[in-house]
Amino acid sequence: MRKIITVSREFGSGGRELGKRLSDILGIEYVDGEIASELAKLTNLDGDYIGKQLENGICGFQPVYARSFSRVSQSSGTAMLLASQHKVIKEIAAKKDCIIVGRGADAVLAGLNPFKIFVYADMPSKIMRCRSRCADGENPSDRELERKIKEIDKARKTTHGVYSTRVWGDKEGYDLCINTTEVVIGEIAPLVAEYARTFFKNN
Amino acid sequence: MRKIITVSREFGSGGRELGKRLSDILGIEYVDGEIASELAKLTNLDGDYIGKQLENGICGFQPVYARSFSRVSQSSGTAMLLASQHKVIKEIAAKKDCIIVGRGADAVLAGLNPFKIFVYADMPSKIMRCRSRCADGENPSDRELERKIKEIDKARKTTHGVYSTRVWGDKEGYDLCINTTEVVIGEIAPLVAEYARTFFKNN
Repeated sequence: MRKIITVSREFGSGGRELGKRLSDILGIEYVDGEIASELAKLTNLDGDYIGKQLENGICGFQPVYARSFSRVSQSSGTAMLLASQHKVIKEIAAKKDCIIVGRGADAVLAGLNPFKIFVYADMPSKIMRCRSRCADGENPSDRELERKIKEIDKARKTTHGVYSTRVWGDKEGYDLCINTTEVVIGEIAPLVAEYARTFFKNN
Repeated sequence: MRKIITVSREFGSGGRELGKRLSDILGIEYVDGEIASELAKLTNLDGDYIGKQLENGICGFQPVYARSFSRVSQSSGTAMLLASQHKVIKEIAAKKDCIIVGRGADAVLAGLNPFKIFVYADMPSKIMRCRSRCADGENPSDRELERKIKEIDKARKTTHGVYSTRVWGDKEGYDLCINTTEVVIGEIAPLVAEYARTFFKNN
């Protein structure tokens, strides 16, 4: 059975760090960069552009029959990118065990029964994590960071809803939901890795 | 710092078993029976009666100003029992480290910063766990068990809402949410115990 871990996460909750640490501990490849480069090849588009489009997600996306033409054209570029991303993710997961952070992988790979983690935290904790990642000279206010965090998570939720009947962030869609408020990711990663090993043994 | 673990759980998800196993592994007392006997002493009521009343919870309970007199009298007996239970829980937690399953302990003891777990599972899995606990000769249909599970969890949610601004089952109110669908509780308990140790080290 293929060993796949998907890490869905609120922005600033440390999900990416957890995914990388799980990869180091378990020896399962973290494939974020590979997805990005394969997607750029497949679509013949610039990687930075793709990243931006996918981060923004699909705002107010609805099934085609319910949308006006203007909204179709507004969203169709991103929708096509997402479809291409799904193709790339499926191709990679068909070939090897992997860990994928975000990118709707929990929904795309549902048929392969991945170990599905959701990582979340309270707002002050997420703001603190985001601030620690700011480039030198950048000094956004807490309010600006909070707005950014909420915007990104809203886009993630909306986009996820297009491809899954599960609601992004609803615990029912995940095997383990981890609150990283005041948690040192490096300390819990070995325990989560062991939990994943138990999951793979039984599934 | 007091070591307290609260296990909130959907009916049939194995939360009680997890609580008992954590107690065995960590050497922290599981105090369910003590709460029941202290509550019986304090209220001078029969233990079985108390258990039944608390399981039913408070249906449609609202702040006093919004209720009619008939609803006040209907709910006030249970509300008083719950208040007594909170008193007992606080007194026990003030004296010693403990593990408490259910009983709104996550809300009652919030000031002591407990390690808060929520245990959940999909409906088929909960039905299976409930069935395995049925007495000899009892053979309820899946539909009957599902109705019972939903009823009990609805009562838990409503009752929890009376004493906490957190919604029962919303992951934000817990440190770790564990999906026990197709999970062997005995296998994950040592990992959850280790996770709790990490929590207590940092809090």
